Amino acid sequence: MSGVANFKNCGSVLVTGASRGLGLQIVENLASGEFSPRKIIATARNVAGAETLQELAGKYPNIHVLTLDVVSQDSIEKCAEEVDLLLQEDGLNCLINNAGINVLADFHSVTAEKMTENYHTNAVAPLMITKAFLPLLKRAAAREAADDVMGIQRAAVINITSLLGSVELNWGERANNFKWYPYRTSKSALNMVSRCMAVDLEPDGILCMAIHPGWVRTDMGGMMAPLSPEESVSSVLSVIGGLTEKDHGSFLNFTGEQLPW
Amino acid sequence: MSGVANFKNCGSVLVTGASRGLGLQIVENLASGEFSPRKIIATARNVAGAETLQELAGKYPNIHVLTLDVVSQDSIEKCAEEVDLLLQEDGLNCLINNAGINVLADFHSVTAEKMTENYHTNAVAPLMITKAFLPLLKRAAAREAADDVMGIQRAAVINITSLLGSVELNWGERANNFKWYPYRTSKSALNMVSRCMAVDLEPDGILCMAIHPGWVRTDMGGMMAPLSPEESVSSVLSVIGGLTEKDHGSFLNFTGEQLPW
Repeated sequence: MSGVANFKNCGSVLVTGASRGLGLQIVENLASGEFSPRKIIATARNVAGAETLQELAGKYPNIHVLTLDVVSQDSIEKCAEEVDLLLQEDGLNCLINNAGINVLADFHSVTAEKMTENYHTNAVAPLMITKAFLPLLKRAAAREAADDVMGIQRAAVINITSLLGSVELNWGERANNFKWYPYRTSKSALNMVSRCMAVDLEPDGILCMAIHPGWVRTDMGGMMAPLSPEESVSSVLSVIGGLTEKDHGSFLNFTGEQLPW
Repeated sequence: MSGVANFKNCGSVLVTGASRGLGLQIVENLASGEFSPRKIIATARNVAGAETLQELAGKYPNIHVLTLDVVSQDSIEKCAEEVDLLLQEDGLNCLINNAGINVLADFHSVTAEKMTENYHTNAVAPLMITKAFLPLLKRAAAREAADDVMGIQRAAVINITSLLGSVELNWGERANNFKWYPYRTSKSALNMVSRCMAVDLEPDGILCMAIHPGWVRTDMGGMMAPLSPEESVSSVLSVIGGLTEKDHGSFLNFTGEQLPW
C-alpha cells in the first residue's frame, strides 16, 4: 500500500523537508512503489545530516537529494537552478511543499518572534518556493494540451497543511486540545496562500491545493498520534494521485474528504 | 446615526490606529454620540502628527490620546501601564484592534519581507496587544457577575478584519479583483488569532470576535469604495454594541451577518 499507483504518469516530484517525518516517508513510498516517478527530488536543509534519506538515495537511483533551506531566498533560487539542470525541457510535474515546523506556544507564552518564525516556514516559504519553481511547473504544464485535465501528470502544487489551520473547526473540544497559536495561525495563513496561488496558477493549467495528512507519529506529531507515517503517506499519495480540476483550490483531508476553512 | 446607542453601559473603549481612517471615525462617533463612553482611549503610532485626532480630543474631554506603535513590544507595554493608571479599578471594557496596513503585492511582486511585515501589524500585533491589556479586561469583566451576559458592557476584544481574509470567498470574480497576498494572508491569520483568543478569553467572560467594516473610502480603501467612513463606522458600532454570547468567536460583516471563514 504505497499509494503511488496514480503516479505512473508523473515524471518528476519535488518534496521539501525530506530528511525525516512525512517528507522522508513520501520519498520512500514514491521510490519503492510499483509506478515510481522518473525523478524524485528530495530536499533538506542539512543534506549531510540526512542519513536515512542518503541511504534511501543509495538504494533508489531516481532519488536526487538537494539542499534547500526553505526560509532562505538564496537557497531557494540556487535549488531551483539545480532542479532546472536536472529536469531540463521536461519541467517539474509535482511540487510538494511539505517542510514545516511547530513553534509550540499558548496564549501566555506566545511572542511576536514565535508567531513570525512559524509563519515564515509554514506559510511564506511555500509561496516563495512555488514562485521560484513556477517556470519549471509551467514548462511541464505546457507539454500537454491547454484543455487537458489538471493533475499530477501535468503540473501540480501540493501544500501539506493541517486540520489545525481550519478556523471553523477551532472551537469546542478540538480547540481546547491544541492551543498552539503560532502553528494554527501559520496553517490558516498557508490555506489562504494556497487558495491565492490556485487562482494565479489556473491559467497555466497548474493544479494547486492543500491537504491535511492526519495526526501522524512523527517527531512533530508525537507517539500518541493514531496514524503511522506509512498509513498517512499512502493515503495522502492516493489522494494526490487522483486529483483533478474539481480539487483545484481545495482543502482536503488525507482520506479525500473536503475540510472547512 | 453614530451607532453608539448601545455604548451607554460601556465605561471605556480603546481604539488602535486612531489617527486616521476608520480608527479616527470610530473615536469621533463614540465621542459625539448621545451615549458616549466615559473614557475613550485613542492610540496612534505618531501622536504628534495626528492633528485631526488632537483637535477632536480638544473638543471632547473624554478622549485620551496615547502613543502606541503596535509592532513594538516596548510601546505596547508602556501604553498598557498608562491605560492602567487611567482606568484603575474599572478596568477596560472594550479593546478595538483596528490598526492595520495593506502592503500591496501580487504573486509576482510578493516577497517574504512584505508577507511578514503585513502579518506582524495585522495579525500578531492584535494578539500581543490583547495579551498586554488582559489584566485590564479581566478586571472589567470581574466587576460583573460570572454568569452575566457577555458584551461591551462587561469586556470585549473586537478585531477589525476583512472579507478579503475569508479563504472560502477568495474564489471566482472576487479573487481576481484583489490579488493581495500579504493583506489577504494577514487577515486570514488574524481570523485564526481571533478564534484562538475567543477560546482562551471565554473563562474570564471576555467576548472576542472579528468584524469586516465593509469597503470604505479611506486612504486604504481608495476613492472607489462604496461606503463613507461614517456609514461604515455607524454600522460597525451598532453591531459591536449589540454583541452577546452568541457572537463570541464569530466573523461578522458590518451589517451584522455571519461571514464564512
